[in-house]
Amino acid sequence: MNLSGPIVLSDNRYGKAENRIVRIYRDGPRHEIRDVNVSTVLRGDFADAYTAGDQSKVLPTDSQKQTAYAYAKKPGLQPVEDYALALARHFVDDVEPVTSAGVEVDEYAWQRVSVDGAEHDHTWTRQGPEVRTARVTVAGKGDAQRAWVIGGVRDLVILKSTGSEFAGFLTDEFTVLEPTPDRMLATSLVARWRFAVTEGVDWDATYAGIRARLAAVFATYHSKALQQTLFEMGKAVLESFPLLAEIRLSAPNKHHFDYDLGRFGIENRGEVYYAADRPYGLIQATVARADAPDAGQAWEQ
Amino acid sequence: MNLSGPIVLSDNRYGKAENRIVRIYRDGPRHEIRDVNVSTVLRGDFADAYTAGDQSKVLPTDSQKQTAYAYAKKPGLQPVEDYALALARHFVDDVEPVTSAGVEVDEYAWQRVSVDGAEHDHTWTRQGPEVRTARVTVAGKGDAQRAWVIGGVRDLVILKSTGSEFAGFLTDEFTVLEPTPDRMLATSLVARWRFAVTEGVDWDATYAGIRARLAAVFATYHSKALQQTLFEMGKAVLESFPLLAEIRLSAPNKHHFDYDLGRFGIENRGEVYYAADRPYGLIQATVARADAPDAGQAWEQ
Amino acid sequence: MNLSGPIVLSDNRYGKAENRIVRIYRDGPRHEIRDVNVSTVLRGDFADAYTAGDQSKVLPTDSQKQTAYAYAKKPGLQPVEDYALALARHFVDDVEPVTSAGVEVDEYAWQRVSVDGAEHDHTWTRQGPEVRTARVTVAGKGDAQRAWVIGGVRDLVILKSTGSEFAGFLTDEFTVLEPTPDRMLATSLVARWRFAVTEGVDWDATYAGIRARLAAVFATYHSKALQQTLFEMGKAVLESFPLLAEIRLSAPNKHHFDYDLGRFGIENRGEVYYAADRPYGLIQATVARADAPDAGQAWEQ
Amino acid sequence: MNLSGPIVLSDNRYGKAENRIVRIYRDGPRHEIRDVNVSTVLRGDFADAYTAGDQSKVLPTDSQKQTAYAYAKKPGLQPVEDYALALARHFVDDVEPVTSAGVEVDEYAWQRVSVDGAEHDHTWTRQGPEVRTARVTVAGKGDAQRAWVIGGVRDLVILKSTGSEFAGFLTDEFTVLEPTPDRMLATSLVARWRFAVTEGVDWDATYAGIRARLAAVFATYHSKALQQTLFEMGKAVLESFPLLAEIRLSAPNKHHFDYDLGRFGIENRGEVYYAADRPYGLIQATVARADAPDAGQAWEQ
Repeated sequence: MNLSGPIVLSDNRYGKAENRIVRIYRDGPRHEIRDVNVSTVLRGDFADAYTAGDQSKVLPTDSQKQTAYAYAKKPGLQPVEDYALALARHFVDDVEPVTSAGVEVDEYAWQRVSVDGAEHDHTWTRQGPEVRTARVTVAGKGDAQRAWVIGGVRDLVILKSTGSEFAGFLTDEFTVLEPTPDRMLATSLVARWRFAVTEGVDWDATYAGIRARLAAVFATYHSKALQQTLFEMGKAVLESFPLLAEIRLSAPNKHHFDYDLGRFGIENRGEVYYAADRPYGLIQATVARADAPDAGQAWEQ
Repeated sequence: MNLSGPIVLSDNRYGKAENRIVRIYRDGPRHEIRDVNVSTVLRGDFADAYTAGDQSKVLPTDSQKQTAYAYAKKPGLQPVEDYALALARHFVDDVEPVTSAGVEVDEYAWQRVSVDGAEHDHTWTRQGPEVRTARVTVAGKGDAQRAWVIGGVRDLVILKSTGSEFAGFLTDEFTVLEPTPDRMLATSLVARWRFAVTEGVDWDATYAGIRARLAAVFATYHSKALQQTLFEMGKAVLESFPLLAEIRLSAPNKHHFDYDLGRFGIENRGEVYYAADRPYGLIQATVARADAPDAGQAWEQ
Repeated sequence: MNLSGPIVLSDNRYGKAENRIVRIYRDGPRHEIRDVNVSTVLRGDFADAYTAGDQSKVLPTDSQKQTAYAYAKKPGLQPVEDYALALARHFVDDVEPVTSAGVEVDEYAWQRVSVDGAEHDHTWTRQGPEVRTARVTVAGKGDAQRAWVIGGVRDLVILKSTGSEFAGFLTDEFTVLEPTPDRMLATSLVARWRFAVTEGVDWDATYAGIRARLAAVFATYHSKALQQTLFEMGKAVLESFPLLAEIRLSAPNKHHFDYDLGRFGIENRGEVYYAADRPYGLIQATVARADAPDAGQAWEQ
Repeated sequence: MNLSGPIVLSDNRYGKAENRIVRIYRDGPRHEIRDVNVSTVLRGDFADAYTAGDQSKVLPTDSQKQTAYAYAKKPGLQPVEDYALALARHFVDDVEPVTSAGVEVDEYAWQRVSVDGAEHDHTWTRQGPEVRTARVTVAGKGDAQRAWVIGGVRDLVILKSTGSEFAGFLTDEFTVLEPTPDRMLATSLVARWRFAVTEGVDWDATYAGIRARLAAVFATYHSKALQQTLFEMGKAVLESFPLLAEIRLSAPNKHHFDYDLGRFGIENRGEVYYAADRPYGLIQATVARADAPDAGQAWEQ
């Protein structure tokens, strides 16, 4: 089949990615820190830049960068979701050709250094590997404007040494895996939750609450498979936070294999594991409220 | 707004990611090598595994891995697109609960070592950083079955030291960028092209041809913006390869800034650059044939 | 100058790198976890393997791997320094051609998940980015045997938002940097400390104490330069831990530049920073006790 | 053993790491490119900066950066070894407190884009993963000045699908590895060679020659172990390039395991391999001329 129809620009967007911004709040001796990586992306009336090289409607990505830094001063980065909403609204409201704007924020956590048992006023160490994420989309001008907020966490590495089994699965000619009644279960979770609202949310508290809920369910729910654990984690979060429309979970099954020490006459009852790099199972699930509002452009960036 | 509707599993999929497979063809003294990273993903009737912990319809990811390796022997990996099609069809056709299967392949290039001017029979060095990619989706059983192939390249780092400008852009209160009539242009291209067909394609030759076309247009087209260059690259590829339905291009603008040597009394006429890491512009475009067949599930993995 | 003397093997060593071992202690309902990356390296009578292809004195790296896993069961990984000493001694004592053995361990930290305010018995999340390190060398047979232990931490990312200046420096024709009375100071510290002893040390408590001391001095000492801060950190650690012979500190100066918001009429008094990736200053210092025992082969791996 | 002696600064050095410099030569329509990552390190009379916070003898790392960029214009980066020598000499000769200077350069390769069979004048694609390296040290003032040049390559990934065995090795209680008469051999080579001279060398041609020699010997020499292959590679290089004093080789044994397809009734005669990530053997060797001049501070950075 050879195609011969006209060739068209069917989609486009552009922005400035990975602006590394650190914001210090220094209103008194006790400073506060917000450390983020901000990416902006604009959609709109930009086709001429692609098809004719005409930049007259293109706000440079450098200008987007300057704006991202300026907005870090005011309204500031406490919390990052409000910052992202303000920045996205600015692009849509104040830059004529822009029809929608997306802002993605990764936020890195810092912990105050402890000195003689007291938290230090202006020194911190980085915490990780987990990273808080936020993705905001604002589309439309004036009364037609809509906005979406997606919160999230990535690289939340979590492991349980028991309370997990895997058995009763489908087998085929290539199945050699043995069922196991007790295995280690570990993942590096990526979770993103879509809010049903964009205002009146205590973003920081909600993030902390969701993160804690995810970890607690992973810990306490006896797992018949990572699939089941993911669903239960998502369900528990939606139950606890009725302002959420849906949650998407992506979880690599970070395999830990019992190391065969028996050939050396050494008993290994779930004590010594080989932590494998690749390949890994990758399990994904979306859990949603049936009455959730439409996702619109929330996930489109 | 608090939601109170039922909580449901609205989407799910699972598979085995990053199976690192090397295939040697050794039918004579001159060996051939194919070096790939294969990920499989299955969709189907798996809800019970999530909501009830019932694995009876779940083919273990370990079995998927075994199959990926077995298929590397036969039909083999020459070329990777046919391998991916065969593997995906196997999952849909032979594993009852599976309704669609996706297979992603990254292929790493190797170059024969030269010894006294002759290519060596069984020794190679790795070529990069660019990586050939393929993504195949097969959905539906029997006569209703459909298939899609997406080819691609990523990490194709390309740079031109002249023949690029950026001027006449929109300005706002945060615009400090100066227009420039001559700048360095560099990117690390990710391109993915959807085929209108899945059979009768010389996959290897088509990949080489598209890769060469992308590079040639980047080199020879005078650029008024990376946006324009991307569109021209996509258009040229579609023109040259009428079996393509669309091409998606994502290009970080890897900024190279003229280094300010003037303060040291040293002239710098586009000779010494600082290659920045972050932030970077990120320009994205989709170029399509107006008469392209529907994308269906091609991009859904 | 053309050389014409005989060509000799002047140095050699070999081992198995990056054995990823996870050890669970499950003597009761409350499990303990140790998560490590172990590398072994052997020196000895191996020249024939290089110069003649004779493997008769070469213990395969696979055997080293098996041993590393076996020793994770017993004596186990609590603490890692004793494990490394036992493993290194085994290679020297029990494998005839080995004259010295080195064992390097990276240990990853995990934090118990909190469920309803209580620590969970068998679920943890990974802590980072900092990594605890240990390097052990054992050389010589029988009475001539010597051993060295080097503890350490790497990727300890620490930042202070005030209490740091940089002024009064040497200037030359290429100096454009302005002195500053108050700047942000941040680094990703690598520190390694050599113990004067190998026995009778509470390794875990000593690690925690040194790590805390490093952070506290970084926080509280007013810095005239990163050089000075490093020296004071090293000095404080040696003063607090008289069982240490020396400490080596390597610290990238992770530059945070005040972002120029003044051109937009926005005041920026140390509030908004650009966190740069590259280049970075790299400051290194060794602080030692004048009466420290000889380092011998401690650093030679 | 508790130490009580005075605490001293026993070693120190500092510099600017990872200056990313791209140099375009544009004397005619056909441009040339040199793309490097430059790190500088200074040793000298800097103790007061550490112990007293006195910066009066400290040339800022920012000034070192400016100088690295200025020298990229003139003398320029063709070749990088001469650039590094000039830059290091400048620091020692022109900055009074400096007693020795080191300059490390990573050079990234680019290949001209081919357009209609002809090389393009000003567009290139990056080649890799291998990286050319250079390390220069200059120590001492005036007549006492000495200099060293170390060339090298890293991340040279090379693989042979036959012509390699491993048998006749030492066994112990933890040995389960079977001898093999024919295996795949692959590594990601790091090689560094010390020149006996610093002048009169065609650096670019020598690099190309050594790189080719390393690959050719790896390809053609039947390997009884990676140890033997490394020694033969080093020996061949020294024989071919009598201006070299020594060569240091570090080679991870990138294991490729025959995949067990027999359990599925599929024969696998060295055709399908699992390419493992970790752990890996790590083999290291230094091959030297017996009459090589003293290494002095060449390796000390």
